[in-house]
Amino acid sequence: MTVCEVGPRDGLQMAKSIMTTEAKCAWIAGLAAAGVREIEVGSFVPARLIPQMADTDAVVRFAKGIAGLTVVALAPNLRGAQAAVMAGAHRVSVPVSVSAGHSRANLNRSPDEQVAVVGGIVAWLRETAPGVELEVACSTAFGCSIDGVVPETGVVRIAAALAAHGVSQIGLADTVGYANPAQIRSVVRAVRAEIGPALVGLHLHDTMGLGIANALAGLEVGIRDFDAALAGLGGCPFAPGASGNIVTEDLVFMLESMGFATGIDLDGLIKARALLHQGLPDEAMHGQLAKAGIPRIFQRAA
Amino acid sequence: MTVCEVGPRDGLQMAKSIMTTEAKCAWIAGLAAAGVREIEVGSFVPARLIPQMADTDAVVRFAKGIAGLTVVALAPNLRGAQAAVMAGAHRVSVPVSVSAGHSRANLNRSPDEQVAVVGGIVAWLRETAPGVELEVACSTAFGCSIDGVVPETGVVRIAAALAAHGVSQIGLADTVGYANPAQIRSVVRAVRAEIGPALVGLHLHDTMGLGIANALAGLEVGIRDFDAALAGLGGCPFAPGASGNIVTEDLVFMLESMGFATGIDLDGLIKARALLHQGLPDEAMHGQLAKAGIPRIFQRAA
Repeated sequence: MTVCEVGPRDGLQMAKSIMTTEAKCAWIAGLAAAGVREIEVGSFVPARLIPQMADTDAVVRFAKGIAGLTVVALAPNLRGAQAAVMAGAHRVSVPVSVSAGHSRANLNRSPDEQVAVVGGIVAWLRETAPGVELEVACSTAFGCSIDGVVPETGVVRIAAALAAHGVSQIGLADTVGYANPAQIRSVVRAVRAEIGPALVGLHLHDTMGLGIANALAGLEVGIRDFDAALAGLGGCPFAPGASGNIVTEDLVFMLESMGFATGIDLDGLIKARALLHQGLPDEAMHGQLAKAGIPRIFQRAA
Repeated sequence: MTVCEVGPRDGLQMAKSIMTTEAKCAWIAGLAAAGVREIEVGSFVPARLIPQMADTDAVVRFAKGIAGLTVVALAPNLRGAQAAVMAGAHRVSVPVSVSAGHSRANLNRSPDEQVAVVGGIVAWLRETAPGVELEVACSTAFGCSIDGVVPETGVVRIAAALAAHGVSQIGLADTVGYANPAQIRSVVRAVRAEIGPALVGLHLHDTMGLGIANALAGLEVGIRDFDAALAGLGGCPFAPGASGNIVTEDLVFMLESMGFATGIDLDGLIKARALLHQGLPDEAMHGQLAKAGIPRIFQRAA
């Protein structure tokens, strides 16, 4: 069971203020100390578009020094992927929007054009940095605040095209948080029928309050890799209406309570929340576990 | 699919201020106008213990005038049940705690003593008011903030004792919100194996952020009757740490999105939230749907 923390990337890009590099590094170290083993630490995008990500190179270099941590960096194109590899990221995460409207707004390319960009990144990595992993997140796989309904066949088509390019780690993202549990099950099954084990994970948002229920639905159809953000930070600057990622600590509480070992310690996450709050004092922090406290009767999975 | 609104009872008993009878009635009328067909409108308990419930008689009499609405009132004992029947409630809801500590704190009786009280209410209703329904909510069925872990065998034992007394509507309540989805499935299956269709519903709290996921788990094992509170109001004065009920509008959004017809209109619930806020302006209101708005692509179940 893998919970990948995406707060330092997806969480921060909507933040009202800029978190310092030092504060980011302290937060990332706190997450790793809690047992988080995968962290998406930033994105290699132009600083004029997302100023919160201007120091991603330094953050990747810091995070690389944490033993046992898989350092993930987002890159929208080959240039960004090259920067991620140069900085030392273990894995590059590239977004491909399933809906044309979000693709245009977020990447200024059509979905098919972005699939071709991924093809170029696959080829370059194979040639230049064969040890670096590549994952692709299919954005707006469950609905789009610009285009509306996203047909399941469209998701399957994009996932198949990515798999045909040799991408072996493909995730489905509910970028705007419109998914419901029945849809999660249906889309996961349809995509898996097409690409098999190359479908690895879900990236869920809690816009409508269904994020954790959607994670449960994913769990039930075999997903074992979830993105989440401490305190439910996050959103997408080009998807109006989108709000925070699912809350890492609430997700971990559910998984551990159900007997799934995440390797993550809840007390450690609560401590990491304090570091996040120190570094970003004006940002709203979500999550029920932190409000209610860890129940005395909570038992970690073995 | 039935969503029973319990805000006017479970929601209000923890409220910091007293809602006027007029405001309660306006809120209840708003809920009914949104299509809510069952509302637990109050409880017949001593006003010195829960002053928010002092006007339950008047509220029941008002709610009885709304065509098509099933009016539910909570009663902890025979005297309360008699008052509920006198006021005209269609259904009396009686709590039985599974855990001894909560039973003592909430009812000042042991669980077995309270089962005997239920037996007396069954006999009295049969004799005096055969048209009035009786339901029993098994409190702390998934954990207790006083006693800690609540064994599944204890829940089954209490449910069986209630069924033996002829109670045909039995619900399981996660009074303090400690349940996880795997536990929901397990306890529902164990209780159903013992009492069959007399197990009708779930009463869930969102203390740990798992309330909607727990509802999904219940849905998957055949539960079609859920309690919820508008804006997630609620708690239990004798269960430290307990926070709000699951949010009616978020639950309805999930159910309708998944294709389950609730008969409830989300716009109507948003309007009822405004009435609740007018009547109780200092109370925190929860729920994601109201924050995010109803997505343009939302489709009601047919």
